[in-house]
Amino acid sequence: MKIIGVDLGGTEIKAGLVDEKEGLLKKTNRPTEVYKGPDRIVENINEAIKELDPEMKIDAIGIGSPGSIDRKKGIVRFSPNFPEWHDFKLAKKLNKITNKDVFVENDANSFTLGEWYFGKAKGMKNFVAITLGTGVGSGVVTHGVFMTGNDGIGAELGHIVVTPNGPLCGCGNRGCLESIASAKSVARHAKELAIRYPDSKVLQMAKSVEDIESKHVFLAFEENDYLAKTVVQDTIDAMARAFGAYIHIFNPAMIVVGGGMSKAGETLFEPLRERVKKYIMKSFIDTYKIEQSNLVENAGILGAASAAIFQIREEK
Amino acid sequence: MKIIGVDLGGTEIKAGLVDEKEGLLKKTNRPTEVYKGPDRIVENINEAIKELDPEMKIDAIGIGSPGSIDRKKGIVRFSPNFPEWHDFKLAKKLNKITNKDVFVENDANSFTLGEWYFGKAKGMKNFVAITLGTGVGSGVVTHGVFMTGNDGIGAELGHIVVTPNGPLCGCGNRGCLESIASAKSVARHAKELAIRYPDSKVLQMAKSVEDIESKHVFLAFEENDYLAKTVVQDTIDAMARAFGAYIHIFNPAMIVVGGGMSKAGETLFEPLRERVKKYIMKSFIDTYKIEQSNLVENAGILGAASAAIFQIREEK
Repeated sequence: MKIIGVDLGGTEIKAGLVDEKEGLLKKTNRPTEVYKGPDRIVENINEAIKELDPEMKIDAIGIGSPGSIDRKKGIVRFSPNFPEWHDFKLAKKLNKITNKDVFVENDANSFTLGEWYFGKAKGMKNFVAITLGTGVGSGVVTHGVFMTGNDGIGAELGHIVVTPNGPLCGCGNRGCLESIASAKSVARHAKELAIRYPDSKVLQMAKSVEDIESKHVFLAFEENDYLAKTVVQDTIDAMARAFGAYIHIFNPAMIVVGGGMSKAGETLFEPLRERVKKYIMKSFIDTYKIEQSNLVENAGILGAASAAIFQIREEK
Repeated sequence: MKIIGVDLGGTEIKAGLVDEKEGLLKKTNRPTEVYKGPDRIVENINEAIKELDPEMKIDAIGIGSPGSIDRKKGIVRFSPNFPEWHDFKLAKKLNKITNKDVFVENDANSFTLGEWYFGKAKGMKNFVAITLGTGVGSGVVTHGVFMTGNDGIGAELGHIVVTPNGPLCGCGNRGCLESIASAKSVARHAKELAIRYPDSKVLQMAKSVEDIESKHVFLAFEENDYLAKTVVQDTIDAMARAFGAYIHIFNPAMIVVGGGMSKAGETLFEPLRERVKKYIMKSFIDTYKIEQSNLVENAGILGAASAAIFQIREEK
């Protein structure tokens, strides 16, 4: 089976031709051009598809998008990438032009399926996938089942409370993992502290308080910067409590971690692995691995293609 | 299929004849007589079985026991009910005498399966089961799969950290749900406070600090006792954070709650349902029910029988 996977970002459309067995064969990209309206986005996606497969021999198209997705109807109900559009009938519009089956899935589920079919969790029956991006996305495969729950809205592992009465989260609660361990939250935490530590390397790297990003924090952490250490240690401790919960709950063979913040690599993973041990029972020691995703820049494309492959297999 | 379910307690053996479709047909009990040694326990179980089914027409025997169980080998590795015995080959010994298949399962998994086959969660594809007893036991059915994880040791929902740096838990961590919301933890919390509140109704009911049990706390809570309110509100808040996590993670149609402490009934459930709403995202409102188990005194027997039914169906 051959699929075109489309990673629909707010500024860029990344698309790739993916073979079910061989993985990514070739890829391309286009500007999204959100300001030109929904029809233009659909046209831009179509152009990318035609470039990758001019004879349209593909079996289907998979699209991964952040936000709230109605996967049955192929509708983007709401996406932070296109805040002005609601209930964008993406699958239907693209199907009209391409005459191919189009599947739409949110980016966290796409990432999980991509890891399952092409990544470090390939073929595993029990794993947890976490993306540390602007928010915290997640997905779970347990006993070989892609777990979404009774209404298909579960596996929201980023919204378990890890710090009671902690920072306000976008979801309305306080102290969710996402309110502490997303790239956005790490940057916010550093910004709050930067006023008190004007000599911090974080500030030197970012140039100004407003421009602080999570990557500056991790770079400064490697250089033993005090502010960075405070933020990173808090983040890792909150993550470790959440990961401990996932381990007790799912008894997974692996937790695979992707998203922008995972690029910090062993700077993040080494202390995280160590800290997680503090929060698990003895019987769970050595039952799991915590790994950085190796799909990197192609995670979005492979994930989107995987979402289509998954749906096609489910329908069979 | 007809099964004898055995609820193996530290002081009492409860046994019942259970029909796969009709539920509990009749039941009996015997003293466990732990002090007389393992062989005597097996003999006591056997006597209960013979009383219930003299002609031995049953298909199998299911035994539920607290502690660490090797369900594949039918071994009780360790149980708080028989602290001096390790690796007690219960299934093998009882099989020799009865010539029937014997299945052994821990009490939390048994409870979950009992709820699935005979309780409020009957036939559900997505639910979470929690027992609030001496400890916090738990089990999960997701997408129709009884979830135990990669090594069969998952679904330990009582050991997620709900209060960082909270009370020490029996598992070695701090602030697990079990360290706050088990009957034992509620009693401990009340005992700690009783010294400061000598006029508390909790103390009047229990007669002495040492004799305080969780039931005294809930009875005094109904009478607006200050100490009891402090303890119950803390307990409910911790439970609500945990339940919120389960809802975000599993998107279950129901959380069914049993165990000794659940007998507090609406005194516990009403404020708990209200508090859980504080910890969940809007999209999860009205997707779940939180219900008290109605299997009551027969939960152990039906659970043990269900564990056997489950294993037999799995083997098919």
